[in-house]
Amino acid sequence: MTPPRRTTIDTAPRLAPTAAGHPHGEGTYVEARTQGAGSVKDTPSVLDLLARGRTMCTPSLRSAVARLAAPMDTVGAYHFGWIDRDGRPAAGDGGKAVRPALALLSAEAAGAPAEAGVPGGVSVELVHNFSLLHDDLMDGDETRRHRATAWTVFGPAQAILVGDALATLGTEVLLDAAVTGGATAADAARAVRLITTATRKLIDGQAMDVAFEQRDVVTVEECLEMEGGKTGALLAASAAIGAVLAGADDRVSDALQRYGYHLGLAFQAVDDLLGIWGATEVTGKPHWGDLRQRKKSLPVCAALAEGGAASRKLADQLADPQGRGEESEQVLAARAGLIEEAGGRAWTQDEARRRHQTALAALDEVPMTDEVREHFVALAEFVVVRER
Amino acid sequence: MTPPRRTTIDTAPRLAPTAAGHPHGEGTYVEARTQGAGSVKDTPSVLDLLARGRTMCTPSLRSAVARLAAPMDTVGAYHFGWIDRDGRPAAGDGGKAVRPALALLSAEAAGAPAEAGVPGGVSVELVHNFSLLHDDLMDGDETRRHRATAWTVFGPAQAILVGDALATLGTEVLLDAAVTGGATAADAARAVRLITTATRKLIDGQAMDVAFEQRDVVTVEECLEMEGGKTGALLAASAAIGAVLAGADDRVSDALQRYGYHLGLAFQAVDDLLGIWGATEVTGKPHWGDLRQRKKSLPVCAALAEGGAASRKLADQLADPQGRGEESEQVLAARAGLIEEAGGRAWTQDEARRRHQTALAALDEVPMTDEVREHFVALAEFVVVRER
Repeated sequence: MTPPRRTTIDTAPRLAPTAAGHPHGEGTYVEARTQGAGSVKDTPSVLDLLARGRTMCTPSLRSAVARLAAPMDTVGAYHFGWIDRDGRPAAGDGGKAVRPALALLSAEAAGAPAEAGVPGGVSVELVHNFSLLHDDLMDGDETRRHRATAWTVFGPAQAILVGDALATLGTEVLLDAAVTGGATAADAARAVRLITTATRKLIDGQAMDVAFEQRDVVTVEECLEMEGGKTGALLAASAAIGAVLAGADDRVSDALQRYGYHLGLAFQAVDDLLGIWGATEVTGKPHWGDLRQRKKSLPVCAALAEGGAASRKLADQLADPQGRGEESEQVLAARAGLIEEAGGRAWTQDEARRRHQTALAALDEVPMTDEVREHFVALAEFVVVRER
Repeated sequence: MTPPRRTTIDTAPRLAPTAAGHPHGEGTYVEARTQGAGSVKDTPSVLDLLARGRTMCTPSLRSAVARLAAPMDTVGAYHFGWIDRDGRPAAGDGGKAVRPALALLSAEAAGAPAEAGVPGGVSVELVHNFSLLHDDLMDGDETRRHRATAWTVFGPAQAILVGDALATLGTEVLLDAAVTGGATAADAARAVRLITTATRKLIDGQAMDVAFEQRDVVTVEECLEMEGGKTGALLAASAAIGAVLAGADDRVSDALQRYGYHLGLAFQAVDDLLGIWGATEVTGKPHWGDLRQRKKSLPVCAALAEGGAASRKLADQLADPQGRGEESEQVLAARAGLIEEAGGRAWTQDEARRRHQTALAALDEVPMTDEVREHFVALAEFVVVRER
């Protein structure tokens, strides 16, 4: 049982840029813990953006899920947190819904009202949750958002079926946007292309992740490609889909996709750092979770690529089948030390900063109001700067 | 381990219309066995049609599967029968490929060359194989087309991932058709709508099938709805997608979809009869396969709906948890007798005939050359008239 990280970005801040508030992210990353909890900025405007995304997209999302044949409608509603396992209405945690928030902003970036992005927000959220349902089953994860995963409650067949259905609905809602007059047929078709390409990259990324589990060494490039697929592709689509539905040209769409893609890689770099050095909520001590699973995350790949003494010692340890999954706290702490000594931690911190900056730079290529730009910047900080 | 039936129509003839050769299927269905093997007609033209579909669609199909990230490309190639489990090229049995053959005919029905239907043929074959990969895993089926199913060779995660990827490719190849100039963007978008709707109905049908396993009674209407989803929806899309890509109007598309839909239900009715009374290749005796699994297939649902003495006795037996899956040949033969006594066998035979006739009647609404019409009629007979 592992914490649901890789494919979700719904966690709280930890790393913070010191040059707070600078819209182009020139600040260097330091650990939030050294600045105290006060450095964490869940600015009201970000929470408003997320709430707006949920409020505007959830009705369409619920009516899409309600279209499914029984009992898939129930399984879907459970997965999204709308009902509990006994079918009673629940004010569940369906995640922060960063993707719908991005899709609405994306429409505004093209000069359209946020409403124009709603089918896009619903689509990316459907595809995101398709991947969660299937990934949880494949990875054997038993909890997500503090609840039992759908496959543990309703069985593997339902998790497969409902995942399949959500992916299909993700295309249907975009085609419907053309029928109901919210978008032209041509723009809806472009949005379908966007989500279809992203979905296939998402699947490619998950396939690479599964394949890496069988290998002792993964290159940094391979790791970035995997994370670009698993996390970058759908965030890229989320950031562009509202603009595409609103008729924006390819130049605008490409720039917004770059913002989302690099934001995804920045998120993932931070997530990988937290996977090793993140502290548990209870003890405040590192849990070494990814090291326990010998996950080939970015800090590990970067450390293995360095080639010095610590790097070679790390490689030997990871190739040794003995003790796998049963290492003591002490052994894992020493291994984390090797990764740090080989530069894996510092490289990944730099990578997070680089990707965050690249994401923000992409925004400069799109003419948009200052307010919309500030919202994109605030959302990026919210996504990248997390505590655990 | 059950024989792979429900979602495949790749089996040999058994039931034959007596008024052989009449293009509108006025013949009544009798069991082929009473007429001897000579009544089975694998006409050369049907085999040519199937070969043409495979020859024209396989290159695009292979290049689509080759796009997948490793090892999904290998898993996909194994599933389609292009390589064996060790990666060596194989002249495998990838199925008869009825759906691609229909898609090419469909383009011709709209007055276009068969080539115009190729992206449609590739798309429906990808979606069909997505459903096979996932269904085999969900149903625990260990063989398909006389080979070990993909999930038994490569594990459940790969079967889930490759299924997901094939479904996504099914949309991508249609969008590509607009880019490469094979179809207008508007027609490609209509084809995407067609395949997306069919995919969701397919998933709904499989979900109903899975749900029915937990129930003692299923109505005839529910059974038909399930089979319409699992088998009718994708055959409907196959019969219309070539015409849609070639710019046919909705009237033509609707009529061709009706042909495919009712053809699917006719196939399924025959399949359900064979599931109970079909003889094994080795012994020539009925294997009672569906009765052993207490499958709520059409003959069973129809018998349960009849309400007489035999019907009530059957209902009691199916509701009795005792002996489930361990009934003797004698008990199963007696149960088959009850179904026949309650009219379930005769009703299903009539249903197959009705659906076959309705399918052929739909062709009358579409102006097409006599040759194309004859090919549709021959394919229908090939699909419906099977031996085991």
